[in-house]
Amino acid sequence: MSDRRKRRRPDPDSDSESDTRPFKHLLKPDATILSSLRTLASSAAASSSKTLTLSDLRLSAACREVSDLPPSAVQSAIESLAVSLARSILSGQGFSFTVPSRSSANQLYVPELDRIVLKDKTSLRPYSSVSTVRKTTITTRILHLIHQLCLKNIHVTKRDLFYTDVKLFQDQTQSDAVLDDVSCILGCTRSSLNVVAAEKGVVVGRLIFSDNGDMIDCTKMGMGGKAIPPNIDRVGDMKSDALFILLVEKDAAYMRLAEDRFYNRFPCIIVTAKGQPDVATRLFLRKMKMELKLPVLALVDSDPYGLKILSVYGCGSKNMSYDSANLTTPDIKWLGIRPSDLDKYKIPEQCRLPMTEQDIKTGKDLLEEDFVKKNPGWVEELNLMVKSKQKAEIQALSSFGFQYLSEVYLPLKLQQRDWL
Amino acid sequence: MSDRRKRRRPDPDSDSESDTRPFKHLLKPDATILSSLRTLASSAAASSSKTLTLSDLRLSAACREVSDLPPSAVQSAIESLAVSLARSILSGQGFSFTVPSRSSANQLYVPELDRIVLKDKTSLRPYSSVSTVRKTTITTRILHLIHQLCLKNIHVTKRDLFYTDVKLFQDQTQSDAVLDDVSCILGCTRSSLNVVAAEKGVVVGRLIFSDNGDMIDCTKMGMGGKAIPPNIDRVGDMKSDALFILLVEKDAAYMRLAEDRFYNRFPCIIVTAKGQPDVATRLFLRKMKMELKLPVLALVDSDPYGLKILSVYGCGSKNMSYDSANLTTPDIKWLGIRPSDLDKYKIPEQCRLPMTEQDIKTGKDLLEEDFVKKNPGWVEELNLMVKSKQKAEIQALSSFGFQYLSEVYLPLKLQQRDWL
Repeated sequence: MSDRRKRRRPDPDSDSESDTRPFKHLLKPDATILSSLRTLASSAAASSSKTLTLSDLRLSAACREVSDLPPSAVQSAIESLAVSLARSILSGQGFSFTVPSRSSANQLYVPELDRIVLKDKTSLRPYSSVSTVRKTTITTRILHLIHQLCLKNIHVTKRDLFYTDVKLFQDQTQSDAVLDDVSCILGCTRSSLNVVAAEKGVVVGRLIFSDNGDMIDCTKMGMGGKAIPPNIDRVGDMKSDALFILLVEKDAAYMRLAEDRFYNRFPCIIVTAKGQPDVATRLFLRKMKMELKLPVLALVDSDPYGLKILSVYGCGSKNMSYDSANLTTPDIKWLGIRPSDLDKYKIPEQCRLPMTEQDIKTGKDLLEEDFVKKNPGWVEELNLMVKSKQKAEIQALSSFGFQYLSEVYLPLKLQQRDWL
Repeated sequence: MSDRRKRRRPDPDSDSESDTRPFKHLLKPDATILSSLRTLASSAAASSSKTLTLSDLRLSAACREVSDLPPSAVQSAIESLAVSLARSILSGQGFSFTVPSRSSANQLYVPELDRIVLKDKTSLRPYSSVSTVRKTTITTRILHLIHQLCLKNIHVTKRDLFYTDVKLFQDQTQSDAVLDDVSCILGCTRSSLNVVAAEKGVVVGRLIFSDNGDMIDCTKMGMGGKAIPPNIDRVGDMKSDALFILLVEKDAAYMRLAEDRFYNRFPCIIVTAKGQPDVATRLFLRKMKMELKLPVLALVDSDPYGLKILSVYGCGSKNMSYDSANLTTPDIKWLGIRPSDLDKYKIPEQCRLPMTEQDIKTGKDLLEEDFVKKNPGWVEELNLMVKSKQKAEIQALSSFGFQYLSEVYLPLKLQQRDWL
């Protein structure tokens, strides 16, 4: 009787829990799972070599993209621009910038590329107009500051940039917006401008890379992991014997996997931005994917925001669509927690949360997005979520024991190749 | 003429800026500054050996404090508690917990210790009362879970703990509050319970330490730095040739110093929690201060929140006063940006911000706090802030050039021993 009760109600703390934890009995030996992962890794390496670009689709004229440029190239681009402006003034035509439009009307989702890109609409920003004289001045000043940053090759934050001329910029939204304009004008990424965002991501596992000249071995970073550097241009020499990259939405799940050294049982690199993806983590993930040619599996909450976070890594945010080629990581697989997992893994009712009206609206909006639509599996899962009106966090798995995530759920997911 | 203009209006971007930057000419050679820092370091090493405790003040009976216990000791404490509860039930007296009160009425600032401590008031939490039966059950369940964590010696987050029994805990505030109660009942720190908070701090500079068995050299962590581990009990073997610890409020200033490798010019350890201090960073800072016996200099914004952040590192938060002995770092010096620096360093008017009504209220409230009152220099600075109604961020120094912070302001502060 006591035995039967144990089987029905999972006890997260029982010492001899190994047998009673749901689905534990389905797990095959690690060697079997590993060999299946090796197949996954080699197919990812084969497929990722043929990433499509705008020019493959003959869209380079109709769309605008920026690329990574070394500081010296940014410097020359600014100098050429200055010369052309001076010529224009000398020829009596005054001076104006041609600025690509970054409005959503000028954005396009390209299914072949699976990301949002910027179309080719531009607008003129003349100095000799009351409505644009201020913005033209700010643009010139930002170009001047960027030129200095590239000359010295140092990195600053947007906040630093704002404070160099508060009188002119007035508030930071103004200098920030012009900074994005300058990226588009020069055709280079924001990181090429040496303006970086605050870092918050961490990485741990089977990865060696150089950060500003120092070699970092991420298997020797304890539980805390290595903070992801804010400036991707000083990151290089990536080496790894991992079979996949595990992209984790949240800190708590990351911690569990780091403490259990999950990456030693299943060779992988574990990375998290601790919530909303920041630019540094997105750049780092893409760089890993591109250089190491590894498959990326995502572990996110089973709610609309989990999928949204996955989508920002995968196909970019609208705000920085001009840089989607550099910020996005193609072909991220949705490993879990998926809405269908809730029943499949018998997540107890009390660990599921009812979706709010706002959640349901966000879920329905996602169903209209192209990047979701093109993946029938995702549509099915999202439909299930919206219909059941239930969500769950990764942490809900703790109801089967604190290490259920690392010892049963993830190994089983990998064994069953259960990703979409 | 052009020369004179240059001297009056600092140009942050001029290539030959070295001479025109304010106060640059006051800087002595690094060797002079270093020798003064060596004196500071050795006096800190001498003074920090005599840290007062509650028992020195004969307050151990009147006040309650927790201490770090190894998992086996926590386990035994829980087992002893269980035995005593069983005895009480068997003797017909039912069962109840004696829980130290954590309300602010039971808190005390002890000037000799320079931190907030918990007084000795307790309350009874009997099972046989309608008003406390639920809380007693939650307490028992949490004790059970903690016992398991210590047995396995794994670490989890508060969120994981909550999810192990959502039906009982109902919402996380309930399990969180009881967790603090359990710390007080057992007389051990929350980290001893193996429940850890999310990490967000980073450290870089002249420090070597072990994280979960891996040796970490923080001079070889590039610009990103090392993420501070969530579980302090797996941190050890600290070694350093630094002369001081630089505690930085914000990410942007941290980045500037890390990129410029400030710690190589002036041997130091640079640490930041990126805003509000989290438990992991507070524990880490204290451990560095205690083991390495180094002075701690704080670089925070010149606003009431900067000083408040300094105070949380220094004398603790009211919420966790029972653990102030382990969470606080004694004798942190306020290096800058101090209100008097705004005029002294001629921070341009447009880089100063007007204080809001709320800011001024917070400033005035701080003036009433014991930990501020006991430092006359701090009172003077805070009075100046409230009177001038002006605040400024660390980033305001960027108006003199992006590297003004690392190349002029901080070296000059160190040279002049300008801290309070």
